[in-house]
Amino acid sequence: MRAYLDCFPCFLRQTIETSRLITSDEKKIRHIINRVSLLFPDISSEATPPEIGREVYRIIRDETGVIDPYNDIKKKCIEQALSLYPEMKKIINSSEDRLLTAIKLSIAGNIIDFGANPDFELKKDINEILVQKLNISHYQEFCKILKKTKRILYLADNAGETVFDRLLIEELKKPVIYAVREKPIINDATREDAYLSGIHEVAEVISTGCDAPGTILKFCSNEFLEIYKNSDLIISKGQGNYEGLSDEPRPIFFLLKAKCSIIAQDTGVEQGDVMLLKAKNYLIYQ
Amino acid sequence: MRAYLDCFPCFLRQTIETSRLITSDEKKIRHIINRVSLLFPDISSEATPPEIGREVYRIIRDETGVIDPYNDIKKKCIEQALSLYPEMKKIINSSEDRLLTAIKLSIAGNIIDFGANPDFELKKDINEILVQKLNISHYQEFCKILKKTKRILYLADNAGETVFDRLLIEELKKPVIYAVREKPIINDATREDAYLSGIHEVAEVISTGCDAPGTILKFCSNEFLEIYKNSDLIISKGQGNYEGLSDEPRPIFFLLKAKCSIIAQDTGVEQGDVMLLKAKNYLIYQ
Repeated sequence: MRAYLDCFPCFLRQTIETSRLITSDEKKIRHIINRVSLLFPDISSEATPPEIGREVYRIIRDETGVIDPYNDIKKKCIEQALSLYPEMKKIINSSEDRLLTAIKLSIAGNIIDFGANPDFELKKDINEILVQKLNISHYQEFCKILKKTKRILYLADNAGETVFDRLLIEELKKPVIYAVREKPIINDATREDAYLSGIHEVAEVISTGCDAPGTILKFCSNEFLEIYKNSDLIISKGQGNYEGLSDEPRPIFFLLKAKCSIIAQDTGVEQGDVMLLKAKNYLIYQ
Repeated sequence: MRAYLDCFPCFLRQTIETSRLITSDEKKIRHIINRVSLLFPDISSEATPPEIGREVYRIIRDETGVIDPYNDIKKKCIEQALSLYPEMKKIINSSEDRLLTAIKLSIAGNIIDFGANPDFELKKDINEILVQKLNISHYQEFCKILKKTKRILYLADNAGETVFDRLLIEELKKPVIYAVREKPIINDATREDAYLSGIHEVAEVISTGCDAPGTILKFCSNEFLEIYKNSDLIISKGQGNYEGLSDEPRPIFFLLKAKCSIIAQDTGVEQGDVMLLKAKNYLIYQ
């Protein structure tokens, strides 16, 4: 998905939000805003939001020397999610359709995203999503492919959400390769976050090789691309991965909540809606 | 009030919103976004929001050739407000404190502002403000000064709101000079809008000489400044005028609703609150 015009003010807002996590020096933040503003005219109209985000956060890193401003927040999110794990497991155990419930929970886990939505109330949102219907649901097709697949490539999104991913992986009953970001970017999951969430106990953890807040194939490692091309089922979590891969002709199923009006517009839902969405350019021959 | 860092993304958002009123050509709008982004680093940290707004809207005007993109919206707002006039007059006639009710109504009229709040529901908001207490109220001091004043300088804000200003002017029972913007800027009132609202029947209509979306003294005409300096009571409507004049040591009473979090922060209220606020640097010797 190419960035919309409306993404530009949002990137400037995120610049301020992230910079304020690092420093209270308004002059310094103003300087960062200036550098990000000067970057905008150089951004191609073909660029996806995670490509722009990668550049924006590079500037913040360059200017402040802080590589992982969301480190504390990520750790807290993982802790919080781990404390919810037994309760979530019970919900799955007592549900009629374990897989569908686990899918919904993994989308609920996507709410843990300080980048797009700083005011989250986790438990409330989880319960809301569980009773909510998926606004777009390619669940039947997903189940058909899942049945036939030998191995699933699972693209992670945020730290904390990782714990909810583990719950879903446990219901997939197939080998899973779990791909995280190469380096810290916003609150996205890295190898460390995956390990802290216990993912290594249920899947093989790898890196995409990409350090953007979303999967951008041209920045991914050859090792990852090899796995990507040979996967017959890819689960993609969150907005950033959707933005990077929405046009790909691959068997990708996007699990996400439309946190902003732009994603809602692009997927044809209302802001706040949740979905299990098949990649539009993938044709399934059954 | 100096612009806050958070004003920059907001200006970029406004750039897109206003440009979309003029054209659906996304490439053109992207070019405007680029020019506004390049402007940001040159903006002094001392600049007020209306000073920045003046530059932003100049770029939009330069690029599109459209001088008054809000013309149709302004005319509709005035029409809508005029249709409410008899009803508002009745409310004042049947109220215990006519002046206070007229003040509240004139703040309610300030809701007609497509710049900061595109989703307004006029009648609903009017009724809400009428039952609401002013969150900051220097009403007693205002009444004292009003009693002694010979002539009031009234600084207009938006078109449409002008009709509500007329209702207040009719309750002031003193001569009023009503100052509008020199040229069209966003949905702010110009001479034409004041006349269409019938202000000339109850006050002398002048221009501040300034074409920013707020009163910035260094851009005002000498004629206006002469009147400004010799006024012993100034009523200032809306955020833009507040932003331009909040630090002035003059007998200014600001009537406004805090439409954004920044103004709320600057005045010490909650977003959405309404106030009759005396200029903080003006000391009243009674």
